[in-house]
Amino acid sequence: MHAEVVCVGDELLSGRVADANAAWLGARLAEHGVPVLRSTVVPDDVPAIVEALTGAAARAGLVVVTGGLGATSDDVTRDALAAVLGTRVVRDRAVEDVLRRRYAERGAEPPVGALRMADVVEGAEVLPNPAGAAPGLRARMGSAQVVLLPGVPSEVRAIAEASVLPGLPAAAGLVTRALHVPRTPESAVGAALAGLEAALPPGVRVAYLASRTEVEVRLTAAAAATTAAEALLEPVVADARAALAALSPIVDDVPLPVAVVRRLTAREETVAVAESLTGGLVTGALTSVPGSSAVLRGGVVAYATAVKASVLGVDAALLAERGAVDPDVALAMAHGVRALLGAEWGVSTTGVAGPGPSEGKPAGEVHVGVVGPGVQGVESLQFRAERDGVRASSVAAALASLRERLG
Amino acid sequence: MHAEVVCVGDELLSGRVADANAAWLGARLAEHGVPVLRSTVVPDDVPAIVEALTGAAARAGLVVVTGGLGATSDDVTRDALAAVLGTRVVRDRAVEDVLRRRYAERGAEPPVGALRMADVVEGAEVLPNPAGAAPGLRARMGSAQVVLLPGVPSEVRAIAEASVLPGLPAAAGLVTRALHVPRTPESAVGAALAGLEAALPPGVRVAYLASRTEVEVRLTAAAAATTAAEALLEPVVADARAALAALSPIVDDVPLPVAVVRRLTAREETVAVAESLTGGLVTGALTSVPGSSAVLRGGVVAYATAVKASVLGVDAALLAERGAVDPDVALAMAHGVRALLGAEWGVSTTGVAGPGPSEGKPAGEVHVGVVGPGVQGVESLQFRAERDGVRASSVAAALASLRERLG
Repeated sequence: MHAEVVCVGDELLSGRVADANAAWLGARLAEHGVPVLRSTVVPDDVPAIVEALTGAAARAGLVVVTGGLGATSDDVTRDALAAVLGTRVVRDRAVEDVLRRRYAERGAEPPVGALRMADVVEGAEVLPNPAGAAPGLRARMGSAQVVLLPGVPSEVRAIAEASVLPGLPAAAGLVTRALHVPRTPESAVGAALAGLEAALPPGVRVAYLASRTEVEVRLTAAAAATTAAEALLEPVVADARAALAALSPIVDDVPLPVAVVRRLTAREETVAVAESLTGGLVTGALTSVPGSSAVLRGGVVAYATAVKASVLGVDAALLAERGAVDPDVALAMAHGVRALLGAEWGVSTTGVAGPGPSEGKPAGEVHVGVVGPGVQGVESLQFRAERDGVRASSVAAALASLRERLG
Repeated sequence: MHAEVVCVGDELLSGRVADANAAWLGARLAEHGVPVLRSTVVPDDVPAIVEALTGAAARAGLVVVTGGLGATSDDVTRDALAAVLGTRVVRDRAVEDVLRRRYAERGAEPPVGALRMADVVEGAEVLPNPAGAAPGLRARMGSAQVVLLPGVPSEVRAIAEASVLPGLPAAAGLVTRALHVPRTPESAVGAALAGLEAALPPGVRVAYLASRTEVEVRLTAAAAATTAAEALLEPVVADARAALAALSPIVDDVPLPVAVVRRLTAREETVAVAESLTGGLVTGALTSVPGSSAVLRGGVVAYATAVKASVLGVDAALLAERGAVDPDVALAMAHGVRALLGAEWGVSTTGVAGPGPSEGKPAGEVHVGVVGPGVQGVESLQFRAERDGVRASSVAAALASLRERLG
């Protein structure tokens, strides 16, 4: 059995939004033993969706469609499925009640149109949406199972994890372990694991999910039972850890911000953050982790150079002489915020996000400072990327630099 | 004339690599008047590529294929095109010479297989690759023009800019205007524009792009010439603005953080941010805007309650009596950060991100403070979402609250 993915949305074709769902579905469906053999992006247009649905259902046993289930007039995926099935779109009272409750709890009436999200395809199974308003739908097209999901990535993940993936063949004895490797190119991670991939025991798969800040290696074993899958997987995970350890000082089973919060919690120590070019994103990444309030005192975004002196106590003469983009300034910012907020650890970022140079320093020059109990250090980096890429890479560098020193 | 994009690569379907080419091609081709009406991802498999090529060429005047032109055995896109055209793959001596020179310049012999990149489809036009080794190829399939490009994004861009886009009918008659509406459900925005949509002049299209913080309404007009398209579009934009103004005090043609930075720049005033539950994300959103350094002094993330008193000067008795999640605390934080960083405006957030209540306040209770020249105010909100949703909605509320007061 294999799957096809159909993503619906003008905004995906015009390039205004880069689709985030196809890659995620491809990885998760492959882990569940149902590889995706084609994915298609079509506009918010009934005939185009009908053609894509018909072709996909003729080739694949599972067709997952994302997008076009919202409340506005360009959301027509339901109509397309109804047309294919020769049935109609009808209002589902149970879903409507759920929607009305969602609004009532906020003391609001559902706006006109909102209840369109309670429209379903006659005869289709309704898949509850734990993360949003519009439910998913599941129906049969000939020999294929067709699943409609909203386009919002968090809702795609929530409905798929709750109602789609568990029903798939490999789900019974399926175990997945993730290894997160920050600050390392996906090609290097792939090369480090090439030998391991070539010698994988049957039933074990490796998938890579690369972001701008880390590579997530997902190792999955499928067997008759969970225990068998774990027995199959553990030695592979150990080998992968060993291979990756030669590549990166940090190989965690959770994303970098979670790992930092866990290490600080275990050490019963706190951290404070001083940010310039990252503008609050390092602190934002740490505070995205539930439980971070126990270890994060807070942070200072010293965007204006004067604030680096007035609030963080960076030597004004140093700033005047070298400017704000300087390793010693980064170190002084880390010391300053640690003292100001009374934390054991201080982390800092300063640099040029771009576009274009600043204070005679090229875009992408970044300095990251870390100060802790008996520890201090600065990393100076040169990123080649656009403004957002430089900022994201700087966030990863600051968190990774702290993570490394937390041991 | 419209285009289709076909991306070739197992790694795209397995989620190992998120495709970066389709979105870029969609944007650039639309700008050149050739909208992409479908994009498809297929595996490194000749029959699958043949089927995708045949279907695309039957529907579209231009088919752009990326991937599968490399040097390894799984690069079979050339073979697929040759099969479709009933011709064969032949070695191109001129391309081979270029390849050999590239290696010779590095004092290296071409590795085994590297010269496969000099293989071309008989009768196809060779498109030079300014950014890499494998050239692009262009051929006719019936009435369609088919272009094969490598999969490396930088090479796709280089060949497309040099040899594909210049040949296209420029986007003379295509005009798009965006209207951004914060803090309003997509369904309400759609309802407000339902009448306008029902009476759209031919050639004008409305699309909605909803994020957790705003709805972007995209109005697009297609006509023979830009002036005609603009004439067609402007009255629709004016009507849409009027309809949306009844719904939201803010309707900007740019996203909220950009609008805030522009208003502050125009007023020649600066802002400082004090954040609790948003943990740096408000400041991060503002600093994502190029040019924000002229108007943003910086921010303080006062995550620990004690920091609200020690750094921001919030009355310790008030904090002891009411706790940190309180409208008066929000107001005091805004006053405090404005004074600390020497800005005209101060913005603050405090609340419970969740999961679960805190200090006896429910998850989702949020207070946003804004203080400016002769202005001060607090908004108290109750969001119903998970941790990330509460934080994102709080960022939007803080920026929108400031934007409204900036006039």
